[in-house]
Amino acid sequence: MASKRIVAVGGSDAGISAALRARELDPDSEVTVVVADAYPNFSICGIPYYVSGEVGHWSNLAHRTLADLKATGMDVRTDTLATGIDVAGKLLAVRGADGRAEELPYDALIVGTGAVSARPPIMGLTGPDALGPTDGVHLLHSMGDTFEVMQTIAERRPRSAVVIGAGYIGLEMAEALSTRGMQVTQIEALPEVLPTVDSELGALVHAELETHGVEVITGTHVSAITRDPTGGVLHVRATGPTGKTFTRGADLVLVVVGVRPDTTLAATAGAKLGVKGAIEVDEYMRTSLPDVYAAGDCVVTHHRLLGKTWLPLGTTAHKQGRVAGENALGGRRWFAGSLGTQVVKVFDLVAARTGLRDQEAAAAGRGWTPATTASRPDDHKAYYPGASPVSIRVTGDTGSGLLLGAQLVGRRGAEISKRVDTYATAIFHGMSVDGVSELDLSYTPPLGSPWDAVQVAAQAWMSEHQLDVQRRMLSAS
Amino acid sequence: MASKRIVAVGGSDAGISAALRARELDPDSEVTVVVADAYPNFSICGIPYYVSGEVGHWSNLAHRTLADLKATGMDVRTDTLATGIDVAGKLLAVRGADGRAEELPYDALIVGTGAVSARPPIMGLTGPDALGPTDGVHLLHSMGDTFEVMQTIAERRPRSAVVIGAGYIGLEMAEALSTRGMQVTQIEALPEVLPTVDSELGALVHAELETHGVEVITGTHVSAITRDPTGGVLHVRATGPTGKTFTRGADLVLVVVGVRPDTTLAATAGAKLGVKGAIEVDEYMRTSLPDVYAAGDCVVTHHRLLGKTWLPLGTTAHKQGRVAGENALGGRRWFAGSLGTQVVKVFDLVAARTGLRDQEAAAAGRGWTPATTASRPDDHKAYYPGASPVSIRVTGDTGSGLLLGAQLVGRRGAEISKRVDTYATAIFHGMSVDGVSELDLSYTPPLGSPWDAVQVAAQAWMSEHQLDVQRRMLSAS
Repeated sequence: MASKRIVAVGGSDAGISAALRARELDPDSEVTVVVADAYPNFSICGIPYYVSGEVGHWSNLAHRTLADLKATGMDVRTDTLATGIDVAGKLLAVRGADGRAEELPYDALIVGTGAVSARPPIMGLTGPDALGPTDGVHLLHSMGDTFEVMQTIAERRPRSAVVIGAGYIGLEMAEALSTRGMQVTQIEALPEVLPTVDSELGALVHAELETHGVEVITGTHVSAITRDPTGGVLHVRATGPTGKTFTRGADLVLVVVGVRPDTTLAATAGAKLGVKGAIEVDEYMRTSLPDVYAAGDCVVTHHRLLGKTWLPLGTTAHKQGRVAGENALGGRRWFAGSLGTQVVKVFDLVAARTGLRDQEAAAAGRGWTPATTASRPDDHKAYYPGASPVSIRVTGDTGSGLLLGAQLVGRRGAEISKRVDTYATAIFHGMSVDGVSELDLSYTPPLGSPWDAVQVAAQAWMSEHQLDVQRRMLSAS
Repeated sequence: MASKRIVAVGGSDAGISAALRARELDPDSEVTVVVADAYPNFSICGIPYYVSGEVGHWSNLAHRTLADLKATGMDVRTDTLATGIDVAGKLLAVRGADGRAEELPYDALIVGTGAVSARPPIMGLTGPDALGPTDGVHLLHSMGDTFEVMQTIAERRPRSAVVIGAGYIGLEMAEALSTRGMQVTQIEALPEVLPTVDSELGALVHAELETHGVEVITGTHVSAITRDPTGGVLHVRATGPTGKTFTRGADLVLVVVGVRPDTTLAATAGAKLGVKGAIEVDEYMRTSLPDVYAAGDCVVTHHRLLGKTWLPLGTTAHKQGRVAGENALGGRRWFAGSLGTQVVKVFDLVAARTGLRDQEAAAAGRGWTPATTASRPDDHKAYYPGASPVSIRVTGDTGSGLLLGAQLVGRRGAEISKRVDTYATAIFHGMSVDGVSELDLSYTPPLGSPWDAVQVAAQAWMSEHQLDVQRRMLSAS
């Protein structure tokens, strides 16, 4: 095999994972990573902990330093914008920090352009007079955004903040700004916070936010953000579920309502787009363009239960990048697919999910008749100090008994994050809900129960949905 | 189906699980549990935390109260000894608390007689003049044993203790007695404590014990326990690895060197015995005797990687009992097998294992060429406060790439217990080491990494043992 020239666009999870894997598998490969900003391989998920002050210096957020990356033998071009792909000529056009244009030849190209913040249609956020960082109004997705938020904090010394959006980043930022001492109001358009879990569990997170002094307003649409003409104060106008309109004043407004795939580079070159406008890729992470791979937040996601969807997650980007890096060298690695496994810490609570919820499973078109059972087993034996209940919702197909999903909320320290991993591993292998009880899981009284909480919850589902079937089978035997 | 009479012998995990499952599946079944002592459904694993004082009252150790059990509709006969089985007549002979003999008719019998403490050949522990609880010399396996230990503590107010044995119970008791303020010496015959994990990890537990003031003496055989003729002090004589003999004085001596299956009832009735003298059962938990099932510490264990072995664990007893209870009703449930998953907390450290270690895998006769790779990934992103390394040893078959086992040691709070569960679930499904990287595990910086520690450790194994193969495959493609 002749040494290959691999070029990756994007310095975040997907691009760097691809480059690392290519260098690991073929030490003769020439690997170049083109990075639009100066922050390759940064942990975007860590931004809230830098804003909160828990991470002392922003440079600590780097998964690896530039020197670490270069030590693997890859070339990293920072502050370099990929401006176009010559697919036939196998050239990537870039413009460097000095403004100079250049064309990088490749044998295989990996597009990892990621996602950009969604900018919702709120008055004051769009148009020529849109408010921005200098007004204390921020989107938050990149390190650049982060520095702007920190500048606002340093210069304006905000005492109050409105966070628009209560998804993962919104919740983490509500905590971060509270930790910095701000009075935070969190506004969510949907009926409950953390809408990626069922509202019964979102309500627990809602209560945790309020316990820590965050004002939480749900079912409420923000219509406008304005700046008080007499000073620096911002006004957020919103309409609640009953149609009542109100205004909250704040020194800082953070808009974190999601992201959309950044596909300009690939789409301009003619790459086919798919679900939610993300770049279409097959399980080998190949785009519709020859020798052009793509991975991460910019591509459609192969989901093990749903088929093709779009579900941007750092964990997925790492896996897809690794697959793309191997296949760019001529490998035949298959991306095994996502289950949408996610976890978030909000103050002292942890919420996690994997697989599907009822309505997602019902909509999947797979013939499932999903049902969900709630239970609240203790995280460890109640007689040992510090036990706390874990709220678990197990979703299964009542027809086949297949395990479809699980959602968990519990105290920090209750090993919620790794408990969802047990479900994720079980779902990965197509286990039945009943089968979960067969797993040989660990037990010691300070950390679990003879049937771990994940098994107790599965047994609760079985009791509710399959006991009659089991009884009939037994009677017939 | 006519209503069945099910009799279970043994009030611990296996017997009670069987009875609960039978009652759940067939509300018409007549279920009787015969319990030798007065403590049905007690958490034997919780004893160290009662001795330490962390559990206030012994009755809290009950998984369920007698009233809870009776509320399920089962009959529980405490202080009742099963004295014989009339296999042909399908009768269990018992002797009640009042000394009265009785014969209980059954359609199916489930033997869950458990295990009894091993009594090592130490002078002073055997023979007619053997020292016992009244001398401050204790074995520890039952609630009865526990009350005797507590009586010694109350009456003799021991300031020092020697714990002979450094397995799970030995370690937990060393912590428990230290927590009560005793100066503890722990003596282990093998070269390192916690011999169920590799000595590299046992050494970490060893250091943790010493950090908390426990004197740890390994590679040392105890030859005699004697009572000082002038007072209550006990002398423990032992011989170290260099052949040097020494003596330690102590107010309390605890001998916890393991257990052996209690098979008298079944063996006397003619049941075939198997590995380590445990009752032979098939995957349906059937003994060689018609309509006699057995489960728990008294039976051979079906291990998913080893085939038949003997591996007494509470988790396994629960699963086997549940299977036996269902099959006693006429069901056809298969015990899916153990992986020997275990976890122990020792002061602020947690140690866990699942599957096989090198020498166990090599001895399994399955044609494996096992190898183990050590790594020390952080439990969560280092930039977030409180990160600590997890020492992980992954074992795989270098021929097939099959994941065979994993051992982990880390700080309490590092989710060691549930991380071993991810490996256990992966091994349950026959995953390759490489496949572990495909699992969609959860991530948030305070609790993990984009590649969770379990995946980082699997990747370390791959780098050491399969990277050359992968490179060759790629070159050939």
